[in-house]
Amino acid sequence: MNNTDLGLVYAERLDAEDDLACYRNEFFFAESDLIYLDGNSLGRLPRQVIKRIQTVLESEWGRDLIRSWNTGWYETPVRVGEMIAHLVGAAPGQVVVSDSTSINLFKLAMAALAMRQDRTVIVTDELNFPSDLYVLQGCVRLLGERHHLHLVPSSDGTAVDEQALMNAIDERTALVTLSHVTFKSGFLHDAATVTERAHEVGALVLWDLSHAVGAVPVELDRWGADLAVGCTYKYLNAGPGAPAFLYVCRELQEEALSPIWGWFGHRTPFAFELDYDPPAGITRFLVSSPSILSVLVLEAALKPLLDAGIARVHEKAMRLTSYLIDVADAVLAPLGFEVASPRDPMRRGAHVSLRHEDAYQINRALIEEMNVLPDFREPDNIRLGLSPLYTSFTDVWKGIDRIRQVVEEKRFEKYSNKRLPVT
Amino acid sequence: MNNTDLGLVYAERLDAEDDLACYRNEFFFAESDLIYLDGNSLGRLPRQVIKRIQTVLESEWGRDLIRSWNTGWYETPVRVGEMIAHLVGAAPGQVVVSDSTSINLFKLAMAALAMRQDRTVIVTDELNFPSDLYVLQGCVRLLGERHHLHLVPSSDGTAVDEQALMNAIDERTALVTLSHVTFKSGFLHDAATVTERAHEVGALVLWDLSHAVGAVPVELDRWGADLAVGCTYKYLNAGPGAPAFLYVCRELQEEALSPIWGWFGHRTPFAFELDYDPPAGITRFLVSSPSILSVLVLEAALKPLLDAGIARVHEKAMRLTSYLIDVADAVLAPLGFEVASPRDPMRRGAHVSLRHEDAYQINRALIEEMNVLPDFREPDNIRLGLSPLYTSFTDVWKGIDRIRQVVEEKRFEKYSNKRLPVT
Repeated sequence: MNNTDLGLVYAERLDAEDDLACYRNEFFFAESDLIYLDGNSLGRLPRQVIKRIQTVLESEWGRDLIRSWNTGWYETPVRVGEMIAHLVGAAPGQVVVSDSTSINLFKLAMAALAMRQDRTVIVTDELNFPSDLYVLQGCVRLLGERHHLHLVPSSDGTAVDEQALMNAIDERTALVTLSHVTFKSGFLHDAATVTERAHEVGALVLWDLSHAVGAVPVELDRWGADLAVGCTYKYLNAGPGAPAFLYVCRELQEEALSPIWGWFGHRTPFAFELDYDPPAGITRFLVSSPSILSVLVLEAALKPLLDAGIARVHEKAMRLTSYLIDVADAVLAPLGFEVASPRDPMRRGAHVSLRHEDAYQINRALIEEMNVLPDFREPDNIRLGLSPLYTSFTDVWKGIDRIRQVVEEKRFEKYSNKRLPVT
Repeated sequence: MNNTDLGLVYAERLDAEDDLACYRNEFFFAESDLIYLDGNSLGRLPRQVIKRIQTVLESEWGRDLIRSWNTGWYETPVRVGEMIAHLVGAAPGQVVVSDSTSINLFKLAMAALAMRQDRTVIVTDELNFPSDLYVLQGCVRLLGERHHLHLVPSSDGTAVDEQALMNAIDERTALVTLSHVTFKSGFLHDAATVTERAHEVGALVLWDLSHAVGAVPVELDRWGADLAVGCTYKYLNAGPGAPAFLYVCRELQEEALSPIWGWFGHRTPFAFELDYDPPAGITRFLVSSPSILSVLVLEAALKPLLDAGIARVHEKAMRLTSYLIDVADAVLAPLGFEVASPRDPMRRGAHVSLRHEDAYQINRALIEEMNVLPDFREPDNIRLGLSPLYTSFTDVWKGIDRIRQVVEEKRFEKYSNKRLPVT
């Protein structure tokens, strides 16, 4: 297949011209033949993490023990939060690292609903990550079924119906909460416009940035966003189940209150007072003793990304995904594949979904015998995540070419359709 | 001071006779002179953790990437939960590793209050860890101030008034929630009796095992406990801010529902259904993708403890703390110290608090110039944690002897009383 204009030679030329190509060396590669196309599910291991964890273990935990709390540990949620703030367009004092994305969504959604008690509608969309919907459903139940979820539809499973979204946001809306980039199709919401509409009618907005942060520009302050949450194990490369972050805009920090009151969200945690007393700023949204090992891994993991800068990362993300779609159109469309992501690069994140009726089995074959790691998403999506710091154009070409081989040679047919625990 | 009967020679003989002494080699020691008496705040680094993390990084995250989810990661909350179950007297299927202690307390307290909607009193005590009180205060607020906290007093700051506790538990009580071992004085509740009393009047019981697990026998099933939470960075040695665990007894697992509905608490997380549907068992209390790095560290950390067995650990804990109290009575009482922990070894955990009017400054001097790491707890407690797997009788002797030196030589006077962020 190298004889097409889009083939290996072309991909290699794009890589040679790529000024982010050097960042690939910042990541650990155990096998040179592996085509990893799932950096939006689990980012690769940054080399700096390996060194950092050794210091954390032997010097900080192992040698200094509790002394480390006063020589850097105590501030980690705020210090690493400020690093993430650079990636999400937030001025200082508005981002902390804490808990998991779903826990943070629960905290902020509950805080938002308490700030709009006279309103009963939560607007979201059916392409939102299901865990977000579950969290919101739990909030509705907890608050006595006074609220309801308005689930804006998608006609094709790829894009949210934006007119329907605008129409759904009205004076009854307490909260609009959406994934900035949707988890399956990679649809990118027009966050500034949605936020503006919500504010026009007095609603609050909470963005889930999990599939956006580290891949596309996020401008929380510029949008005027109220609240946001996000995960760090995707494009931030902080490892499986790494801690999440949350953003509360400065204007709301006096009024917003977490439903979960813990000692790290107390004005004076080590005074051990019997009554809860939240501090004035963002740290009131902390709960427990931070997960130090994980937060320090995150801190090390963020360095290459901050060094490269989100503008260059986004530019490459658009070029990688455009290239992938061009190759898929040329090579895979004739084999029954359909691009299930937006074709406008400004309206998508850094992952692309390809639909095929045998997607699950093809995905198994890619993993089991082709040394390609994509992701499968029900019911029929092969989801390809392109992480600009380490995914090359050559990776994209080879990945698509191996998918072609699996289908043309019918290698997928011997795999069962029965799902593994983690698909 | 070696001329007392309790002195260094005696301590060394106790160590020579100690059949748990060999476990000290399972832990990382960077400095042989350091006397570490804070294993109940942050357990020492187990050597197996250093090896395990290298495998996790380079082989699991680094090389196998997302494939690791299906070769061991996905089951970690349950698999490691079952290891902890051995330490808390729980039959299989009742313990999972998840989130933080305070988050878990929130989930289980909210679940309990929902199961006792006709009752409005939460019984706890004023020696409970303040973060637990804050969480409960948050629950009360969230539920519209219908409930109130009955805070059973302690007359001396050391023991909870047990008669007052029994009297406080009545037909209005929805939930009794206590720290099995209290954080400051180390008072050990008679958990079987408290649980029985609560059940007599139809209340539920939730134990916080943070300062108990890995130090004293915990028998949740035998007590008939309903719910429990606990932390893993103290006597379980899983590192700063390591993930916590929770227990829900089998009988309540159908009825109890978490207030936080996340995808890892869904019957089929990877089906990505739009509606929350909890599974039948304990995993409904999970929320998010588990913190894999931290949970695998915990798994490695648990091995020496499970190998030693909690009966032997507890026996040594009682001997260590008794020895400490004897030495403190002989050496420190004349210098103005007072034992602020129960004197009956069956009624205390593995830590002992010593009160002194200059405790904060003495604690600073111990850290800054004596190479002793105790803990300070407001207003005047030096808290000494004795972790039976690695604390020696010699450590106890030397620690007390260095405290004596600091006070006799007035070395503490040059330190400020102004508190550091983490005291």
